[in-house]
Amino acid sequence: MKPIIVLIATVLASQSALAQQQEWIDLTHALSEQSVFWPTAEPFKLVTDAEGFTDGGYYYSAYSFSAAEHGGTHIDAPIHFAAGRRTVDQIPLSQLIGNAVVIDVSAKARKDADYLVVKDDFAAWERARGEIPKQAIVLLHTGYGQFWPDAERYLGTAQRGEEGVAKLHFPGLHPDAALWLVNQRHIKAVGIDTASIDYGMSRDFASHVALMGANVPAFENVANLHKLPARGVFVVALPTKIEGGSGGPLRIVARVSAP
Amino acid sequence: MKPIIVLIATVLASQSALAQQQEWIDLTHALSEQSVFWPTAEPFKLVTDAEGFTDGGYYYSAYSFSAAEHGGTHIDAPIHFAAGRRTVDQIPLSQLIGNAVVIDVSAKARKDADYLVVKDDFAAWERARGEIPKQAIVLLHTGYGQFWPDAERYLGTAQRGEEGVAKLHFPGLHPDAALWLVNQRHIKAVGIDTASIDYGMSRDFASHVALMGANVPAFENVANLHKLPARGVFVVALPTKIEGGSGGPLRIVARVSAP
Repeated sequence: MKPIIVLIATVLASQSALAQQQEWIDLTHALSEQSVFWPTAEPFKLVTDAEGFTDGGYYYSAYSFSAAEHGGTHIDAPIHFAAGRRTVDQIPLSQLIGNAVVIDVSAKARKDADYLVVKDDFAAWERARGEIPKQAIVLLHTGYGQFWPDAERYLGTAQRGEEGVAKLHFPGLHPDAALWLVNQRHIKAVGIDTASIDYGMSRDFASHVALMGANVPAFENVANLHKLPARGVFVVALPTKIEGGSGGPLRIVARVSAP
Repeated sequence: MKPIIVLIATVLASQSALAQQQEWIDLTHALSEQSVFWPTAEPFKLVTDAEGFTDGGYYYSAYSFSAAEHGGTHIDAPIHFAAGRRTVDQIPLSQLIGNAVVIDVSAKARKDADYLVVKDDFAAWERARGEIPKQAIVLLHTGYGQFWPDAERYLGTAQRGEEGVAKLHFPGLHPDAALWLVNQRHIKAVGIDTASIDYGMSRDFASHVALMGANVPAFENVANLHKLPARGVFVVALPTKIEGGSGGPLRIVARVSAP
């Protein structure tokens, strides 16, 4: 049995070494006063409480911050658009951590700011790569991440308030496709590199309603999706644990799995 | 070769199945207006922006929040106590994710609210379990997590302001032991289930200065350390990515590795 044991040990060791070496990729935009927020939402603000050398001889800096839950890279908890569904602190960790697939629609979205990701985009992905696994985290890559934090290009407008909302143009997920992901592929969560899982022109937020009614959260303003392959991605998406929150800042990272 | 291949495949498959099944443990206290904050720091506040059914017929809830960076389960970035060191958004992900060890000093801390974790505590751990691996995340289990969020027991006082600071009593890490972890064990980060890595009576914050001068962050107000074994723990600690921040809310989770 000795050679077998050595062989197994070698395989396990190389796996473990790979896991150690694999680089984590940050899919999170940093939060600052330049971060893109919804035109009607309170932007991120950082206040200096202390900064400099103290009488005790040591350096000390500390800040306070404030923001709306739904700005920067953030999560929409199911309660955001569905009465009685989960608040952000109630989402099970198992739903926020797991295997992900990346659907690249950037070629289409580049030509059409109002592009909606449709079922056919998933069908094309599946023809090339096999069925989207059950319990996957589905990441939609529209290419809009490259416009961050230029609101004019990212949202279609830099105008604030209700007048800004009327001028929003950016890609999103079609409500029928959202329902299909929930009912046919039993996804854990969906993410997108735009400001909302519904496109800018949406007035009924039907994709939010479809996803969140089924307790499926959405990750919005996700960064760096161009760095990921179409599959073989492992995602850890950890939101700020706001008790009773409808969402909040999300730190989302990914690692490319061993092939 | 066939039986060998089958055997290897079986081992790998069982490893992978284990990884899928393993439960993630949340080491994060939820943030609420009851969360324990430093007596002089601005507590967490949640404001309702919307809550209820809209004219469009769908439900919608959204909140805004504010807080000091250093309250609830949070991270101290190196810049918090060391000029020119890393801000929270600059800490490499590789330093926030990795293997962890848990040092249980709860029996001593239960008898002494001013207990300091000393080098001897690490020496005892190492005699029983082998050397603390290099690049480990070291979690200090004082047992104080059980008092959360009762400030009277958790901090030693519920009084706010400078008068509260004067009455703080809770365990921490001795500055010499902090230096030893940095210089002799080359740790990635250190975590504790109290409000500060320096004990409540500290006036010079020497453990903060020792760790942060070496770009080692601290995780504070960590929850549920009693649920972890002494070793074989994998930690993912993802802070809110505040640009230029000295710290911020931390979502920290752990998985028990395969034995």
